[in-house]
Amino acid sequence: MLKRLKNTALLLTATSLPFTLFSSQLPAATAADTAGALKAAVNQHIADHGGEILGDFRELLAMPNVSTSLPDMQKNAQWISRYIGERGFSSRIVRAGGAPYILAERKTPGATRTVLIYAHFDGQPVEPADWKTPPFEPTLKDAAATLDWEKALKQGIDPEWRVYARSAGDDKAPVIALMHAIDAMDAAGLEASVNVKLILDGEEEFGSPTVEQILEEHADELSADILLFCDGPMHQSGLRQLVFGVRGDIGVNLTLYGPSRPLHSGHYGNWAPHPTDALMRLLATMKDMDGNIQVAGYLDEVTPVSEAEQVAIAAIPSVDAQLQDELALGRVEGAGERIEMTIMRPAINIVGFQAGGVDDQARNIILSKARASLDLRLVPAQTIDHVKQTLEEHFKSQGFYVTYEEPSEEVLRNNPGVIKVDWTEGYPAYRSDLNGEAARKLTAILTKYDGEKPLISPTLGGSLPIHLFDQALDMPIVLLPIANHDNNQHGRDENMRVGNLFSAIGVYAAVLEGFGRN
Amino acid sequence: MLKRLKNTALLLTATSLPFTLFSSQLPAATAADTAGALKAAVNQHIADHGGEILGDFRELLAMPNVSTSLPDMQKNAQWISRYIGERGFSSRIVRAGGAPYILAERKTPGATRTVLIYAHFDGQPVEPADWKTPPFEPTLKDAAATLDWEKALKQGIDPEWRVYARSAGDDKAPVIALMHAIDAMDAAGLEASVNVKLILDGEEEFGSPTVEQILEEHADELSADILLFCDGPMHQSGLRQLVFGVRGDIGVNLTLYGPSRPLHSGHYGNWAPHPTDALMRLLATMKDMDGNIQVAGYLDEVTPVSEAEQVAIAAIPSVDAQLQDELALGRVEGAGERIEMTIMRPAINIVGFQAGGVDDQARNIILSKARASLDLRLVPAQTIDHVKQTLEEHFKSQGFYVTYEEPSEEVLRNNPGVIKVDWTEGYPAYRSDLNGEAARKLTAILTKYDGEKPLISPTLGGSLPIHLFDQALDMPIVLLPIANHDNNQHGRDENMRVGNLFSAIGVYAAVLEGFGRN
Repeated sequence: MLKRLKNTALLLTATSLPFTLFSSQLPAATAADTAGALKAAVNQHIADHGGEILGDFRELLAMPNVSTSLPDMQKNAQWISRYIGERGFSSRIVRAGGAPYILAERKTPGATRTVLIYAHFDGQPVEPADWKTPPFEPTLKDAAATLDWEKALKQGIDPEWRVYARSAGDDKAPVIALMHAIDAMDAAGLEASVNVKLILDGEEEFGSPTVEQILEEHADELSADILLFCDGPMHQSGLRQLVFGVRGDIGVNLTLYGPSRPLHSGHYGNWAPHPTDALMRLLATMKDMDGNIQVAGYLDEVTPVSEAEQVAIAAIPSVDAQLQDELALGRVEGAGERIEMTIMRPAINIVGFQAGGVDDQARNIILSKARASLDLRLVPAQTIDHVKQTLEEHFKSQGFYVTYEEPSEEVLRNNPGVIKVDWTEGYPAYRSDLNGEAARKLTAILTKYDGEKPLISPTLGGSLPIHLFDQALDMPIVLLPIANHDNNQHGRDENMRVGNLFSAIGVYAAVLEGFGRN
Repeated sequence: MLKRLKNTALLLTATSLPFTLFSSQLPAATAADTAGALKAAVNQHIADHGGEILGDFRELLAMPNVSTSLPDMQKNAQWISRYIGERGFSSRIVRAGGAPYILAERKTPGATRTVLIYAHFDGQPVEPADWKTPPFEPTLKDAAATLDWEKALKQGIDPEWRVYARSAGDDKAPVIALMHAIDAMDAAGLEASVNVKLILDGEEEFGSPTVEQILEEHADELSADILLFCDGPMHQSGLRQLVFGVRGDIGVNLTLYGPSRPLHSGHYGNWAPHPTDALMRLLATMKDMDGNIQVAGYLDEVTPVSEAEQVAIAAIPSVDAQLQDELALGRVEGAGERIEMTIMRPAINIVGFQAGGVDDQARNIILSKARASLDLRLVPAQTIDHVKQTLEEHFKSQGFYVTYEEPSEEVLRNNPGVIKVDWTEGYPAYRSDLNGEAARKLTAILTKYDGEKPLISPTLGGSLPIHLFDQALDMPIVLLPIANHDNNQHGRDENMRVGNLFSAIGVYAAVLEGFGRN
């Protein structure tokens, strides 16, 4: 662990956060002003322990966490168990054949309500060559340059700094922020009004294949009044949001076959078909230039966006123009619809296409195989079975023989096109009631803390296996994202803005302080 | 060097070669029967030195030879210089800023004619993970298994064995076969009728970027009566062929741009366009399902196939059905045309497409870039300039801004699509006279040696920078391929059939013995 830095002076800079976390004049707490007292406690804690917070985050991020490596995930789980144990959490690491999960609880004397918090501590696979700095060597940067951790933290912390590492944005920050929220409240003598339970997932980026069994086996000990899903990015406007749904997700790996051995593209080019050509043509039939899905029957189950959802979206400030500029996009899909509406629809993403080397690695051959991976985002009412069936039917309608295994030469000879389809585990979408009790309560807590109402988003574009929690646990489920929207989650150079990490401490403190009160 | 094995017994097996190289009853040479005497000499040499021939080949193939590594290419060049020096060749290694070339000569007392032989000793880049055995650890295999080199050579050599290594088929065999042709003739007291000159290219797989300067600077010392290009595969029927042309070739690397940073495919899928989608759609517009090029103006320069070429092709046995079966192809391009006719047309090959990982490496992101590499095969009269211009115009007609450099964010913002185009050095096609003096002479020599007329092919589908030799050197140019057609050249598991290597010794001996006579 990093040397803990005490009394770190906060560097004063302009911040784009629409609430005041960083102030040289820490307001005095009054009994009548819980929001003020809480904010003062959090600000004082950050002022005193900013370097320690970042040091803890750094240490957690330095542990590789691709879910397929069980030893790595065990190491992460043990670190977290110890870390939360220091804040009075009893915990255990459980498995159901996959990566580990952590179940934990911290009781508050006299509390009658319980908040269950979900986060995950695994990360997407990495391609280190694509990263500016190694994905598991957390790197602190300001807008201009890489900073020396020790020196920078001694000088004072700028909320605009960012920490670069896999899982910085998705999703190792909540456990750090939540523990420091508890530290801040403890230091100021402020009590939580709720019991806190945790379920920390070690295999979310692989679709949480064993979460269903985990939930089934541990449903009793996970009982609570609300499940807060702490994952995903904040709204692109930088405003706080509560999110009431996620898209579902399923992946499919496709292999399309060419000649049984690679051929010289000179001697055979014009005669032996390239599997790359056929795969491109096939994939291009799935949607039009605006992203509208063209697969027959694929959308049959989709229900229209409700009145309440339309109203909620209309209340969100539009970020399309800002985003299009920020991302240097010369055009967007959706035919003029705002982004919040486009993610209410299913999406077919061609996330991977591998067929021969390029540039210096280009070889003049006709390949035996071309491969692609699709990421299919689903909306409520869409079922996995229907999605699979209609997509496979589409491939057949385009002249392909569809197989689930490596085809024999006989099969290849007898069909003008053969495609192998390898589905990953998937899960459906989830949306909860925008106007339920939990929604109103959380909205009130955040409004009181921030001084303005949070945005109410019907769905994240991204996916979480929330439907399983909904099936297994009898409680409302709401998402409370904390990461900056531009955290590059899943990609190279993933990062967390320091100001976002710090602001999460206040948000969690507000929930712990407020949710148990009437 | 391998321990040289003497008196290796030849293993007797059926061979698909349509001429008899392997006989337990070596025919006695008679003065009246030069073809017979030559065949006897070659067979005796193979019987005595088969293990040594394969050992030499193995040693040459064990040296990595990707042209971009100058130290590797120098090592290859030095090995070859020494090797040919042992057979009386004077040589020098020359460079013109690129990889080394070897120029060499072996004079025959009294000879008035000279044969110039071209081969190359560099190989295509390798992806070792794709190979069954390491590309630079030459491996001897029979149909069933990998053989132990030392043990196998002691037992006797089966012509159906294959040697697996990068450049086994393309194009390190000619130098080995030619030197053993000379050894065989020397041992039998048979004299060459010609002086022999060599130009051995160390950068052919990268388009021989400096060959023009090499030819210009050394035109005088390369003077000869014929240039024999020893590269390329034999006809798929296994029959001997003389080839009178090659397609031209140019490569282009394409980069199509997405958002300025990778985006989560859940949060942004349906709104931010995937560059993969756009690249697929763009590439699919270049040709139809039959491989017919759809780029406006691209074919304007192409001249029709001549009467003589049509007649020559008609005389070649058709291999389409056999090939389609062998390659397990459920369909072929060309709308029913035979393969020899399809390669008389230009081809656009999408040889590389890289856009995100697949299977376990798939990450759910919208990429910032999708990349592809094209290999464009050209036919006579097509010019590089016209090809470049019409393809770039095509990209523009499809709505793309075409740039040669990394685009600024400003350019990306202001254009619905941006594509970076990076052309490699290319060269035009070449075809020579099917009915010229050199053609007739070589046809007669091979007919006499093999007992049947070789096939006359107007062109290889593949490419060699022959036009430069045609410009710089005043002599007819003919290709004499020796590699088995299924040598996997450019791909993984490249190989040379042992019978083809041995048969090349006889063919070269026949040319050396016969070309100087009237």
